[in-house]
Amino acid sequence: MHPRYMHGAATSPEVKVYAYAAAQVKKALEVTHYLGGENYVFWGGREGYQTLLNTDMKRELEHLANFLQAAVNHKKKIGFNGTLLIEPKPQEPTKHQYDWDVATTFSFLQKFGLTGEFKINVECNHATLSGHSCHHELETARINDILGNIDANTGDPQVGWDTDEFLTDISEATLIMSSVVKNDGLAPGGFNFDAKLRRESTDVEDLFIAHISGMDTMARGLRNVAKLIEDGSLDELVRKRYQSFDTEIGAMIEAGKGDFETLEKKVLEWGEPTVPSGKQELAEMLFQSAL
Amino acid sequence: MHPRYMHGAATSPEVKVYAYAAAQVKKALEVTHYLGGENYVFWGGREGYQTLLNTDMKRELEHLANFLQAAVNHKKKIGFNGTLLIEPKPQEPTKHQYDWDVATTFSFLQKFGLTGEFKINVECNHATLSGHSCHHELETARINDILGNIDANTGDPQVGWDTDEFLTDISEATLIMSSVVKNDGLAPGGFNFDAKLRRESTDVEDLFIAHISGMDTMARGLRNVAKLIEDGSLDELVRKRYQSFDTEIGAMIEAGKGDFETLEKKVLEWGEPTVPSGKQELAEMLFQSAL
Amino acid sequence: MHPRYMHGAATSPEVKVYAYAAAQVKKALEVTHYLGGENYVFWGGREGYQTLLNTDMKRELEHLANFLQAAVNHKKKIGFNGTLLIEPKPQEPTKHQYDWDVATTFSFLQKFGLTGEFKINVECNHATLSGHSCHHELETARINDILGNIDANTGDPQVGWDTDEFLTDISEATLIMSSVVKNDGLAPGGFNFDAKLRRESTDVEDLFIAHISGMDTMARGLRNVAKLIEDGSLDELVRKRYQSFDTEIGAMIEAGKGDFETLEKKVLEWGEPTVPSGKQELAEMLFQSAL
Amino acid sequence: MHPRYMHGAATSPEVKVYAYAAAQVKKALEVTHYLGGENYVFWGGREGYQTLLNTDMKRELEHLANFLQAAVNHKKKIGFNGTLLIEPKPQEPTKHQYDWDVATTFSFLQKFGLTGEFKINVECNHATLSGHSCHHELETARINDILGNIDANTGDPQVGWDTDEFLTDISEATLIMSSVVKNDGLAPGGFNFDAKLRRESTDVEDLFIAHISGMDTMARGLRNVAKLIEDGSLDELVRKRYQSFDTEIGAMIEAGKGDFETLEKKVLEWGEPTVPSGKQELAEMLFQSAL
Repeated sequence: MHPRYMHGAATSPEVKVYAYAAAQVKKALEVTHYLGGENYVFWGGREGYQTLLNTDMKRELEHLANFLQAAVNHKKKIGFNGTLLIEPKPQEPTKHQYDWDVATTFSFLQKFGLTGEFKINVECNHATLSGHSCHHELETARINDILGNIDANTGDPQVGWDTDEFLTDISEATLIMSSVVKNDGLAPGGFNFDAKLRRESTDVEDLFIAHISGMDTMARGLRNVAKLIEDGSLDELVRKRYQSFDTEIGAMIEAGKGDFETLEKKVLEWGEPTVPSGKQELAEMLFQSAL
Repeated sequence: MHPRYMHGAATSPEVKVYAYAAAQVKKALEVTHYLGGENYVFWGGREGYQTLLNTDMKRELEHLANFLQAAVNHKKKIGFNGTLLIEPKPQEPTKHQYDWDVATTFSFLQKFGLTGEFKINVECNHATLSGHSCHHELETARINDILGNIDANTGDPQVGWDTDEFLTDISEATLIMSSVVKNDGLAPGGFNFDAKLRRESTDVEDLFIAHISGMDTMARGLRNVAKLIEDGSLDELVRKRYQSFDTEIGAMIEAGKGDFETLEKKVLEWGEPTVPSGKQELAEMLFQSAL
Repeated sequence: MHPRYMHGAATSPEVKVYAYAAAQVKKALEVTHYLGGENYVFWGGREGYQTLLNTDMKRELEHLANFLQAAVNHKKKIGFNGTLLIEPKPQEPTKHQYDWDVATTFSFLQKFGLTGEFKINVECNHATLSGHSCHHELETARINDILGNIDANTGDPQVGWDTDEFLTDISEATLIMSSVVKNDGLAPGGFNFDAKLRRESTDVEDLFIAHISGMDTMARGLRNVAKLIEDGSLDELVRKRYQSFDTEIGAMIEAGKGDFETLEKKVLEWGEPTVPSGKQELAEMLFQSAL
Repeated sequence: MHPRYMHGAATSPEVKVYAYAAAQVKKALEVTHYLGGENYVFWGGREGYQTLLNTDMKRELEHLANFLQAAVNHKKKIGFNGTLLIEPKPQEPTKHQYDWDVATTFSFLQKFGLTGEFKINVECNHATLSGHSCHHELETARINDILGNIDANTGDPQVGWDTDEFLTDISEATLIMSSVVKNDGLAPGGFNFDAKLRRESTDVEDLFIAHISGMDTMARGLRNVAKLIEDGSLDELVRKRYQSFDTEIGAMIEAGKGDFETLEKKVLEWGEPTVPSGKQELAEMLFQSAL
């Protein structure tokens, strides 16, 4: 024990920082309500740790949950009916953030009884930093009924920090829009360009070009999705891949009644199965044909 | 629509593959029980997708949950009381596995009501592939009461695939052992060397050297943890960092009673807080001193 | 010193392995010549180290250089006039390969006087594994006059191992083709599909679909490059960015006569410069418009 | 062609920026000389591109070479005898920097005839960002006789940006020091802590703790290297691995006289070789034993 290193700790002001943050969020919620806001994003960036050596992760997660529950309580108290959103981000500047990705955030919401109170704001560059495609993060949110808003930017998957570039990749835009369509839109959320010019883009016109280019990219993405839906081949490919779960034994499995004894009996009757093709190359060809 | 691509899909054998896997796991559970096994690890490697273009992720996750529930049911039916474990792995050979990391797996278990039936087998090289330290994965499992076993291997963080090397890093071993001690051990689970020789290590003695070196590394890790605990400085540093949550307003916050109005009043009384030091460099120095 | 570990080393057969490899490459060169081959690729995969702890990197690089020089000598001796190519790969299965990327390989060729005897076979998935875009590797080879052949495959930039997928990304194909056009083609080299089906693609037709899709992608890439060249806007944007180096002080700098004293005098005359825009968003918009 | 986007390009001030940089470096070189400096580091951070779409990489590399040659000329003109150093960095904030790593920088120096005029300042965090260990970068510089100085910091290999932390890893420090010892030191260069406190470390004492911890780590590294040298086992393991190249056929190969015909004859005499063990696990055990 080296008590000399510890002299400042007795009056540690951590609770004061927590309270200060609470007062700030309280005010921001009230202002949002006053202005008629429909969404309130908990945009983070520090809600994690730099090293576990100095961190009580269990206690920090409980503090975070209590903070967010207090926000829910205050929202209801003041009559604000807008959506509360969490924007997952894996790291930067911290080594690890508690809302690393959609699945991690959903795990947290479930554990602390906050499901139903929060939706997710997916930021595409945060998605790629966490090792996932933006499409994966959108779909993970969508199938768990927590997709609420999209920060429509992009980053370079070979770059390890957040660059927040305007989206120009048509393929990416098409995947994003396919999630939005499957989600029946995002309202009361929507898209926002959480994107900025490159440091070297110093002309005034660059700002206009970037927005036009980003908007056009989203529009091309939506038109491509329309083409894919009209053509129907890709949807049909996916539907057929799972159709054996629509009837008989498959339907029984989906109903949670596929016990191991019944299935073993069927296997002894059927013999070793052939492995069906995943048709990945076909799926990719159908997708690229729409671009 | 290109119906010519679809002709084979009508007889798709996906349900047969599911049933075949069920019969295999049924048999393996029974053999484990017969042999007096105490743990059963769902070691995976294919439980994910290569591309979302051909995948219905929602349906696949439901299938996986139903499969695991059926395994739980069968385990109880045959009177097997051992622990069921899931071993998270982010990818390889698939692009994305559904048990990506501990948090993702815990999210899945919660959603499908499987918490309490499964523990986690943390594999250190899988941890690093998912962008986390092994220590992070262990701690995430520990604080959620699902740490059950450890595959004690390692990988190179600058290498993007699973190498399963014997652990030789003393610092890593110390962090691992600190989680084990905090978890009051792992029983009925434990450690296993899911590690192998390098391809170029062709002498018979290499196999002995590797195991001795791996075992010595774990032992040095445990002795270092003992030193850290006896010294107490590092634990004290962490304890002091959170001690302002032990009493008064802090305790009220931890009890879930820190509403925003009360906190705002305290802030107006306290003024803007000073930011306390995280003491990271001190924590690192204390840790390294024990190695 | 632990002499007991060393007893086997005295008769170490490393030279025999080197000689065996030499005999293999000798035979392969002769067969290639006999069959009228026009290219000979040193496809690697082991020419590196797993750990520097057991490696004399200096000596290994000299051995590699002597081996390649001996191959050049033998090629000339037997009258084989085909191109010798090295295919850079950063790692996998080794931690580090000596032909990590194009720049590293070019450095090696220069140091050992082998420039002029070897060209580069760029593999796009190896490029992305080394942290570069395929386009970067192609351009680095092209501007150093060593671009000889292209393995036209692709990988997922979020995946850390070589997947060798068929190329389906139109944007990537366009960038690749733009390098080929600027290089006046690749002859006597060309493209080859060093790409394979996904493990899950088990239908016979998948092999056809994959090749058709890959070939169509390359064709769309070439047509897009034609569009970009005809339009001319993107080339013009780049040309204008550097045109101030075409005359006067700029031309003097390019001629290697821009000494610091002269330049300082001009600066004192000109004053602090405005920073010109890199027009990245415009360049991206022009590029995407051609897709 | 969209001529309206181009109106500003005619007076593009790129040459003025080049000249301005020249005047700045001229002044900095003169001040360094006046103050008795012994080293001059070209610390970069912008010498690359964000996208190849707007970049003429060939021309930019020639400009950079001419700039550095002019610096060499000016250095000689003013009688400054200090070492000029380049500090490789792969990226951040640019997508690609022209001095990506040691090998890339050495390739550049060779191509433009600048070898002999520049040494390398290895920054350990830049090393890890480029996908290499710091030890790899040091060794690559050392065996090419261009190791001149070390920025002794560290980063987290699971984090994709430059964090410049104080070095606390004993293993890493030992590897670094082993390169320094093999290089017979670094003079007139040396070590510098290009490292900073974490943002959360707000106490004054943190600055002292960090420097003490960093210095102690380097000292422990040096003492470990002394232990390894005194013990001799690891050096002996490496020496034995290559000793078959010290005599007879091996020596002939090293002298560049191992032609394929001679080697093939020896192979026919020797038969297929056994593959010798790389003894990696033993090397790792010997190394860790010294920590």
